[in-house]
Amino acid sequence: MIKQVIIVRKDLGMTTGKIASQVAHASLSAFLKTENLRKEIAQKWLEEGQTKIVLKVKDKEEFDKIKDLLRQNNIDFVVIVDSGKTQILPNTETAIGIGPIESEKIDPITEKLKLL
Amino acid sequence: MIKQVIIVRKDLGMTTGKIASQVAHASLSAFLKTENLRKEIAQKWLEEGQTKIVLKVKDKEEFDKIKDLLRQNNIDFVVIVDSGKTQILPNTETAIGIGPIESEKIDPITEKLKLL
Repeated sequence: MIKQVIIVRKDLGMTTGKIASQVAHASLSAFLKTENLRKEIAQKWLEEGQTKIVLKVKDKEEFDKIKDLLRQNNIDFVVIVDSGKTQILPNTETAIGIGPIESEKIDPITEKLKLL
Repeated sequence: MIKQVIIVRKDLGMTTGKIASQVAHASLSAFLKTENLRKEIAQKWLEEGQTKIVLKVKDKEEFDKIKDLLRQNNIDFVVIVDSGKTQILPNTETAIGIGPIESEKIDPITEKLKLL
């Protein structure tokens, strides 16, 4: 199965609307990156219904640990950095976007995270 | 200013994660539609930081009214229909995605809606 995985920090006190816009930003950015690097996977995912999984991490430490694991496994991802004009401090990392990517590649890294 | 506008129904009892994934779906679908129809606007929006506004409507009636207004004004949009495997009934319309589009075209239609 091909899916996109978005991971959001839950320690920033963002409203639902703010979270939704960070997730959308991560989703679009990760998609455009994948479309550049792996066009067939991106296209297949669009045609198969765009499965998205939105997960949460409890703090920056857990967030950074996921980034490290992704790098160690050579998995491409995007990090959303918010300008911080509203709600949170400038240049805060809020979300990670991964894929679309094959489940077998991403699940071992994210399987312990809970759904947002 | 060029921005993307996403409108979400608040009467469906969706969790934050579910809302975020519907918004992401609307954002990506509206972007791909705009990229097809108005490539320069889509590209400009990407370069200018992808401003997204996430708004809410209180029920299906208000949701349908917005769709009617968009059609009357010849504004392209996408409607996200959830398969309803989780949380909500099958084939439920959950969100509208519009643009990226010029503020002066969309603001008159959505200016009365509140931020999610």
